[in-house]
Amino acid sequence: MLKLYIANKNYSSWSLRPWLLMSQAGIAFEEVMVPFDDLAPTSPFKQTLQPLAPTGQVPLLVDGDLVVWDTLAIAEYLAEKFPEKQLWPADARARARARSVCAEMHAGFSALRNHCPMNLEASMPEMGRVIWRDQAGVRANVARIVAMWQELLDTHGGPMLFGAFSVADAYYAPVCVRLANFALPVPPTIAAYIERVRALPAMQRWTEAALAEQRFVDFDEPYRAAP
Amino acid sequence: MLKLYIANKNYSSWSLRPWLLMSQAGIAFEEVMVPFDDLAPTSPFKQTLQPLAPTGQVPLLVDGDLVVWDTLAIAEYLAEKFPEKQLWPADARARARARSVCAEMHAGFSALRNHCPMNLEASMPEMGRVIWRDQAGVRANVARIVAMWQELLDTHGGPMLFGAFSVADAYYAPVCVRLANFALPVPPTIAAYIERVRALPAMQRWTEAALAEQRFVDFDEPYRAAP
Repeated sequence: MLKLYIANKNYSSWSLRPWLLMSQAGIAFEEVMVPFDDLAPTSPFKQTLQPLAPTGQVPLLVDGDLVVWDTLAIAEYLAEKFPEKQLWPADARARARARSVCAEMHAGFSALRNHCPMNLEASMPEMGRVIWRDQAGVRANVARIVAMWQELLDTHGGPMLFGAFSVADAYYAPVCVRLANFALPVPPTIAAYIERVRALPAMQRWTEAALAEQRFVDFDEPYRAAP
Repeated sequence: MLKLYIANKNYSSWSLRPWLLMSQAGIAFEEVMVPFDDLAPTSPFKQTLQPLAPTGQVPLLVDGDLVVWDTLAIAEYLAEKFPEKQLWPADARARARARSVCAEMHAGFSALRNHCPMNLEASMPEMGRVIWRDQAGVRANVARIVAMWQELLDTHGGPMLFGAFSVADAYYAPVCVRLANFALPVPPTIAAYIERVRALPAMQRWTEAALAEQRFVDFDEPYRAAP
């Protein structure tokens, strides 16, 4: 069976993406949780992951003796292995667009990612107001995301970015959590999309597990000293 | 005909990747050069690109009224459109590995990219020695790249990373230029791969055009005030 290595569900946005993709699409897999620690070369985290893949990071997908690392490569591997799941949009043009927005996420939006880390357990609207006031980069990132989602929802008619659930929704699911938990201002149609993503059955399962973790990870907590 | 929007060949590492991929694979396209300027919202660069794609960046691939942005999405689009070109390795396992190393490049190696920008016209071995002495991040990036390439060359027998030329070689071609022009220390088998990439006919055409540009772009010149 496929094995997916992930880290803390409360914090690990990159783990969420393939986990949500496979869970929501009904692809069976064994989950292997490797909790964040100090990430030193001798730490349990690195000692577990480094022998499996050169990056020593999550997520990792293991299929027999094949190891696929990096979220986009995992998504492409799954899309090829399970064509009936239609993880990418079936239309070639929509598929090219979906890959463009995923690649844009893969290497971009650094202001939003740095200032508003994913943290399912924490609702921080006050901090969100300060960030929104002070961080032009965050405002620019959100403006781009809002425009992107609005255009895709208009073009494909919803409920997900390309109509049916696809890799693109999994890719932006952590962004939905960030926007909601920092209460960053978005138009009602975008807020409704965020709620639809948060209400996906697999997303609810992930969220419940995240809330049950009760592990506080300092380096993902720029705004709190305790839960 | 396909149109590929690129910026200065001397500096634009992201432009080089799809240009080299298409040129070396024999995929016909029209090249549209948009030179770097100050990149302000009102600049010719942004005024040309922003109407085409929301990121306002190069590279952009235009196929009729479809615009594909971001290098990985362009590579996947071309691989689907021209299956006979085998832009990805034919073997599913090798393909997953190739996508992993490309995704790793897409979002990683920031120390090498920041300290050693691609600059085909500039040979800077002295600066390379200082960077190598002072920048542990650059040394770590190069160590990872050397290990990656060595393993792939051993596994697939060369001459390229996955045997025949593929997306992976196009993705790492700018790294070959950086390693060579900053004269960063690499083992002989890696130096030989770098020379094979630099000797690819399409890479030679790109290099000749880069040397003929004679445009000095300040923000890509952290070590020089003039050519």
